[in-house]
Amino acid sequence: MKVVLYMAMSANGFIAKENNETPWSNEEWESFSTMVQSIGNIVIGRKTYEIMKENNEFEKIGNPVVVVVSNTLKEKSVFVNSPEKAIEQLKEKGFSEVLVAGGGILNSSFVKKGLIDEIYLDIEPVLFGRGISLFAKNDFEEKLTLLGTKKISKDTIQLHYQVRK
Amino acid sequence: MKVVLYMAMSANGFIAKENNETPWSNEEWESFSTMVQSIGNIVIGRKTYEIMKENNEFEKIGNPVVVVVSNTLKEKSVFVNSPEKAIEQLKEKGFSEVLVAGGGILNSSFVKKGLIDEIYLDIEPVLFGRGISLFAKNDFEEKLTLLGTKKISKDTIQLHYQVRK
Repeated sequence: MKVVLYMAMSANGFIAKENNETPWSNEEWESFSTMVQSIGNIVIGRKTYEIMKENNEFEKIGNPVVVVVSNTLKEKSVFVNSPEKAIEQLKEKGFSEVLVAGGGILNSSFVKKGLIDEIYLDIEPVLFGRGISLFAKNDFEEKLTLLGTKKISKDTIQLHYQVRK
Repeated sequence: MKVVLYMAMSANGFIAKENNETPWSNEEWESFSTMVQSIGNIVIGRKTYEIMKENNEFEKIGNPVVVVVSNTLKEKSVFVNSPEKAIEQLKEKGFSEVLVAGGGILNSSFVKKGLIDEIYLDIEPVLFGRGISLFAKNDFEEKLTLLGTKKISKDTIQLHYQVRK
């Protein structure tokens, strides 16, 4: 099972403003949507789930299979209580790739457990003075290999990394 | 006066580990050193000054003119108490460019005051679970224009931005 983290972030490492706004470019959303449609699923945290649901974003990205990791289990068809269970559930559904897509707490717990294989970071041309970090504070240190870079739009660059194991 | 911010950071936006360690590649230090020698000066915060002094880093980067921004003025030849005064002092010395080089508190106050014209960010192939952010938390939001990208080493990429004004 290959686990891929895909996030857009400000040039100083925030995946959203403090109020959860993500003022990314259209090209950015298209790039994310293409990736979601290619993999067919996303694993997200509870807050990201609620925000995406409220904004009808699941439709916009082609209605992928959604797995939500949360400590407060709700709808059993969608919620699981650990990263490992999210991967397991998608494996059972026949997927060979998993797309992890935020927020910072979920991303951090996947990295801490050594579960991420590849990372796509789309660096948006903005700086926020405050915001939600790519990874919530946690005890880890990882080395990466740069697999490639790609211009997504005039001012947005995508960095593609492998997590060294 | 052109004010340039140059920083190396982890792929998740930390300019150092929590213990101030900066485990960057040799190529990274060479790139920074070349920039310092080209501009001839650096403006840094008190803590960065103390760390660089302790590690004899000023010699290694060609003994630039050093200006330290600190609220607790010490040696009058080196310390000033605001970003504006740092720029003024270097202007008086005949410089047409200023190199701002950390830490996060100093970087943040320069950005907040709208004093940065260009930013070089060298993205090192590491993730830290905790660390010192590129910018200390502050109230600002800036838009950037991507001027270019450059590979500094196999796994390190440099992003060069203009701050839109």
